Amino acid sequence: MEKNNGNKGVGVESAARFGVPGPTNPMVTPLLTDLYQFTMAYAYWKAGKHQERAVFDLYFRKNPFGGEYTVFAGLEECIRLVANFKFQEDEISFVRQMLPPSCEDEFYDYLREVDCSDVELYAIPEGTVVFPKVPLLRIEGPIAIVQLLETPFVNLVNYASLVTTNAARHRFVAGKSKVLLEFGLRRAQGPDGGIGASKYCYMGGFDATSNVAAGKLFGIPLRGTHSHAFVSSYMSVDEIAEKSLRSSDGSRTCDDFVALVQTWSSKIQWSKSLHSTFGETNQSELAAFISYALAFPANFLALVDTYDVMRSGVPNFCAVALALNDLGYKALGIRLDSGDLAYLSCESRKFFQSIEEEFRIPGFGKMNITASNDLNEETLDALNKQGHEVDAYGIGTYLVTCYAQAALGCVFKLVEINNQPRIKLSEDVSKVSIPCKKRSYRLYGREGFPLLDIMTGENELPPKVGERILCRHPFIESKRAYVVPQRVEELLKCYWPGRSGKGREELPMLKEVRARCISQLDHMRSDHMRRLNPTPYKVSVSGKLYDFIHFLWLNEAPVGELQ
Amino acid sequence: MEKNNGNKGVGVESAARFGVPGPTNPMVTPLLTDLYQFTMAYAYWKAGKHQERAVFDLYFRKNPFGGEYTVFAGLEECIRLVANFKFQEDEISFVRQMLPPSCEDEFYDYLREVDCSDVELYAIPEGTVVFPKVPLLRIEGPIAIVQLLETPFVNLVNYASLVTTNAARHRFVAGKSKVLLEFGLRRAQGPDGGIGASKYCYMGGFDATSNVAAGKLFGIPLRGTHSHAFVSSYMSVDEIAEKSLRSSDGSRTCDDFVALVQTWSSKIQWSKSLHSTFGETNQSELAAFISYALAFPANFLALVDTYDVMRSGVPNFCAVALALNDLGYKALGIRLDSGDLAYLSCESRKFFQSIEEEFRIPGFGKMNITASNDLNEETLDALNKQGHEVDAYGIGTYLVTCYAQAALGCVFKLVEINNQPRIKLSEDVSKVSIPCKKRSYRLYGREGFPLLDIMTGENELPPKVGERILCRHPFIESKRAYVVPQRVEELLKCYWPGRSGKGREELPMLKEVRARCISQLDHMRSDHMRRLNPTPYKVSVSGKLYDFIHFLWLNEAPVGELQ
Repeated sequence: MEKNNGNKGVGVESAARFGVPGPTNPMVTPLLTDLYQFTMAYAYWKAGKHQERAVFDLYFRKNPFGGEYTVFAGLEECIRLVANFKFQEDEISFVRQMLPPSCEDEFYDYLREVDCSDVELYAIPEGTVVFPKVPLLRIEGPIAIVQLLETPFVNLVNYASLVTTNAARHRFVAGKSKVLLEFGLRRAQGPDGGIGASKYCYMGGFDATSNVAAGKLFGIPLRGTHSHAFVSSYMSVDEIAEKSLRSSDGSRTCDDFVALVQTWSSKIQWSKSLHSTFGETNQSELAAFISYALAFPANFLALVDTYDVMRSGVPNFCAVALALNDLGYKALGIRLDSGDLAYLSCESRKFFQSIEEEFRIPGFGKMNITASNDLNEETLDALNKQGHEVDAYGIGTYLVTCYAQAALGCVFKLVEINNQPRIKLSEDVSKVSIPCKKRSYRLYGREGFPLLDIMTGENELPPKVGERILCRHPFIESKRAYVVPQRVEELLKCYWPGRSGKGREELPMLKEVRARCISQLDHMRSDHMRRLNPTPYKVSVSGKLYDFIHFLWLNEAPVGELQ
Repeated sequence: MEKNNGNKGVGVESAARFGVPGPTNPMVTPLLTDLYQFTMAYAYWKAGKHQERAVFDLYFRKNPFGGEYTVFAGLEECIRLVANFKFQEDEISFVRQMLPPSCEDEFYDYLREVDCSDVELYAIPEGTVVFPKVPLLRIEGPIAIVQLLETPFVNLVNYASLVTTNAARHRFVAGKSKVLLEFGLRRAQGPDGGIGASKYCYMGGFDATSNVAAGKLFGIPLRGTHSHAFVSSYMSVDEIAEKSLRSSDGSRTCDDFVALVQTWSSKIQWSKSLHSTFGETNQSELAAFISYALAFPANFLALVDTYDVMRSGVPNFCAVALALNDLGYKALGIRLDSGDLAYLSCESRKFFQSIEEEFRIPGFGKMNITASNDLNEETLDALNKQGHEVDAYGIGTYLVTCYAQAALGCVFKLVEINNQPRIKLSEDVSKVSIPCKKRSYRLYGREGFPLLDIMTGENELPPKVGERILCRHPFIESKRAYVVPQRVEELLKCYWPGRSGKGREELPMLKEVRARCISQLDHMRSDHMRRLNPTPYKVSVSGKLYDFIHFLWLNEAPVGELQ
């Protein structure tokens, strides 16, 4: 587990215990929980029940965004919290102030000793494609302690899984060949809404972020050039004092780069083959582009929509790019941030191709075009249908706030206490919990695709490759199927062994989790993944577990009395 | 400003500079910005333009949630960032790694010296009701530095204002007499999505939160009792070992509180006037309630929907509450977390009233009823229409994630550089920025309500009480009105004077900001506030500013050429 220690938290709370650094956000402390976890802890303690061994499952009930899959994320942060779970004196004093004065002092002595050394945590590896009802985490330990973990765990998993899934869905629509940039920091729900979004969008298949803090914390590639304000901060080319630029190979110096650009600008303007419909392009924009190119000659990328994309931005960009080309530099491309992105990208592409032909600059036609401005799954899909020439997308608001569905409803349910299975009933069948300490398996078919997930009791024999097994819908009697798995994968792995002496899974680096996520998504049957009417993936229980659920259900449910 | 120093950040970065503590979340550092702010800073520096004095406005374009008002929040966190804005060596090294190697070393020497001592920040006071296009913040300073502030400022204001507004809207529908509890931590977008939500929901008019960390950081009242897991963790009353309970006044001890509860349970069960339709209530639920009451005899509040509200939860609660009453304790009430909340609250109320009559317990009928479970503006409105007996609401997911609209679109636009006004054009008129360093005023009418906001140039004479002033729509020529204000309030106040030597506003305590917010909302004309078809509040510019905007617009916009 010591493997992943490059990614340190930023605050004082982050000192590593058990070789695991603290949570990335130092605000994630044992106090980041609901008050009722403390009142319950006191009531358990007062009843002498706080050490009773309980098993809780963390799972969600419905896939987000109208889809049929979810990517599990947030595990590493949960383990960081568990490994460093310890109350500070000021935290204990605060809890004491918040509870009624009648609460006994010895309870705070107990809190002082609390840590997670007696907690066992099993989880599905982070970055795995997951489905409703199947436990993402199974936490076993003294009931009072495990309940204190409920709120932070659900908090850390909910948004992480939601935004990773959102990123994966954007990648799915954009296609593998496009570069996806996360630009959401300014619109995210708070500072670590932004930092979390950057981490988890990268995990879900994005290529880079604009968020510098996230780049530093997680090693995510960074991208960014300039804004409209940069362009409008220039008035004219007269502002540019230092006009010289050395060539890329250092062999010569152009003394007046501004003049070189202006020469190219006239050539473009008077070219017949370019069918230029513009008079003079905006000169303050040209000044901004030249200034940016002088600062970053090898990394010139320009935002071209401040005034008018085709009549000013693109020709101004080309004039600078051609001047750079004279000095051996290759411009990176343009960014479009408004207007009809399909149309403007195609027009820009044509213009670049004409430049390539007219001035014989090989490769100029392939100039990179980045598009941004309120993009989401629907607009990406619409662009694909219209036809476009965009190479890279910068996506912000809709991605990071998960605008289409701003929350995932993870829950944390007691499934066993003192070896006694517990069920949570509800008039709404979808809210009935699946009792017992369980194991889960993913069964794969002949073509290598996952067929279904099955949950069994802890002590049942695991499904075997090549052997027929009955898989039942947990609640609907008529839904069942025999499956002969070609491969069986146990889903829950031990990430925190407590005192069990079991081995514990390493926490992989973010890049590895990302690779796992991308590979998992690639290996799903396509009908589960499509945007329109996807096929639900089957989640089942063993025959034995089915019978037990229904025995317990009948036992606990009150018999109705109609009047 | 030293006034507000109880609310400290949690991490190492939070050491106070200029008497202002660092941001609450220590992850809010000068690196929490977009990479392009650094590339632009370098380009400005390289062009010798980085010290040019620029003025930026931070504002939004459209009120959220289909409403016609917004509450401004997030200012204190912006000031905390400004006051402590300084790059650490490791941050500078990181920026150096991220920029091309061709960037000159002297730039990093410049970054090392950067702080906000030369930045002037004017803002509308936090907790003020605000409207589209009117600057919430006006930031003036060296262009490179002010641009570095763009991303964190927009991040800190966007979600804060959005969720404060959401809380205010929930309060509006719930009515003043109800207690509103924020229960959203587990569903929030990341840890400080949760902590921020708790702070800003309190600011927007909520009474308390379940979030212990937020309670500690901000002094927000805390609320919470127990969950379904607590109820289902008990099997029977036999688990309760210590059964004695001292009376409230300490005068006597009941040796077997369990037996006392059971006596009350039978009385309730066999009472004819209660029309009890139940057989035996769930005994594990009863055990949990007794256990909780023994731990918190003076604070007994029970979650009554684990098995069946009317056939088990409410009668079990009443048995425990009546036993507590025998010992001089007054139970607090019940919480309903599922089912038909209108119906169940009315049935529970009837039951409590029958208990009051049957057993002559004055006040029992007024027992507090809290409702939770996926509440939002619509469900609160529906409850009001159906009629209900709920006294308090616990609201989570829809409140804290701003599910109905997960982002507010604040922008940060250059309005002046080197005393030259700048305008950002767009084909979409609603996106055209209002140029110039400006002042803003709120004009009040005879009845004390705000009439409209007006923006003027920095050096125009302010509107005067009793004098007629022409107020123009910034973009639509035909929309204008003469107004004779009865009161004139200048909106932008100096919160960070830079080197100007001006006085600076104190940062008020959260409770004061909350009081301001509630009072502001109370003093709006009701037609702006209603949920259905609210009247837009007017935002205008002076005649002079109008003329100037349109002069600049014509000057900058390219003339179209139709073919």
